[in-house]
Amino acid sequence: MTTGVMQQKQSKLAITTPGRGMLNITREVATLLSGSTISEGMLHLFVQHTSCSLLIQENADPDVRHDLETFFRRLVPEGMEWIVHRTEGPDDMPAHIRTALTQTSISIPVSGGRPALGTWQGLYLFEHRARPHRRQVLFHIIGE
Amino acid sequence: MTTGVMQQKQSKLAITTPGRGMLNITREVATLLSGSTISEGMLHLFVQHTSCSLLIQENADPDVRHDLETFFRRLVPEGMEWIVHRTEGPDDMPAHIRTALTQTSISIPVSGGRPALGTWQGLYLFEHRARPHRRQVLFHIIGE
Amino acid sequence: MTTGVMQQKQSKLAITTPGRGMLNITREVATLLSGSTISEGMLHLFVQHTSCSLLIQENADPDVRHDLETFFRRLVPEGMEWIVHRTEGPDDMPAHIRTALTQTSISIPVSGGRPALGTWQGLYLFEHRARPHRRQVLFHIIGE
Repeated sequence: MTTGVMQQKQSKLAITTPGRGMLNITREVATLLSGSTISEGMLHLFVQHTSCSLLIQENADPDVRHDLETFFRRLVPEGMEWIVHRTEGPDDMPAHIRTALTQTSISIPVSGGRPALGTWQGLYLFEHRARPHRRQVLFHIIGE
Repeated sequence: MTTGVMQQKQSKLAITTPGRGMLNITREVATLLSGSTISEGMLHLFVQHTSCSLLIQENADPDVRHDLETFFRRLVPEGMEWIVHRTEGPDDMPAHIRTALTQTSISIPVSGGRPALGTWQGLYLFEHRARPHRRQVLFHIIGE
Repeated sequence: MTTGVMQQKQSKLAITTPGRGMLNITREVATLLSGSTISEGMLHLFVQHTSCSLLIQENADPDVRHDLETFFRRLVPEGMEWIVHRTEGPDDMPAHIRTALTQTSISIPVSGGRPALGTWQGLYLFEHRARPHRRQVLFHIIGE
């Protein structure tokens, strides 16, 4: 049990995605974290969108990301005949569904001033829209 | 980095759902938040059930909620022949599965005394049982 | 609103799973919690792996866990012909996908020194690999 004084810090990451797929943001998040004086605590990430999400996944073999993208594209393909919401294009409603199946918020313990990810874990912004988008990720750290 | 004194507050929201589908609880949560003196921090929500869940999704076109419900109903239909757990009715096991595919806990940064949701984000209680249910949502805010 | 001094504590649970399926870790987590002096706050759990996950689900009828396992095995079967990542065996890529569809981090309010789970909720480590694995679950509690 630590006995220092608890502090918190909020900031925002603006990230431009290249279109559908997983974008590794581990380094950007670790850099933001290293800019605070908090060495032990919790890091909370939150995307302010409903057509992209956050995912922690394997950071080694890129085939894992490729296969994850394939799975979601097959589970939630464009052009399903029962879709009603079509005003923003054929990729929009599948993007909302893919977001619902993954995470809008992720919480990671912080230890030694770093996100306490496992050896094979990377943090990804999962873009579900076909085209590039500008995305806002909120970053909140609390600890001491 | 803020330097005030960190505080926390817990409370409970009791919500009656009208049956299967997404119920917008953004306003109820924002009201609870405005009753605290915390202006910057983290808001954690948690449902004490295994057949409903929490979801952040588009708050504009109601067709999005309609299509999300359709997707989950098609992915996890009632009457799948391999289901063993049938004692609480045909909608019960699909409700557990839909819960597993979405979230029991969601964490949202708080800024300026409000949940820092994106423009198009709403917070929903996703009821997976066919009939109306009384649901408990725990609310925890920490910050200063 | 409580006015004590906020504290935090981090520790790690090492858990050996018996292979694919849901392992109840509610008791282990409650025991860790009871070893701290925090009675009200938030508990954050995080798995440092990308082929197992955390799930809150029904703790009563074991058929629910059986059916959940069946659902995920049918939704993400071994041997899908489009999978590229095969170096770690036929169960590996399905394990990554099952992890993406569930949770790597879960946050639970703490009240009266206990996780504020609902009556029918249990906390599970969801092993997605076929064989037994040694898993690390990070445990972070913050409160007073």
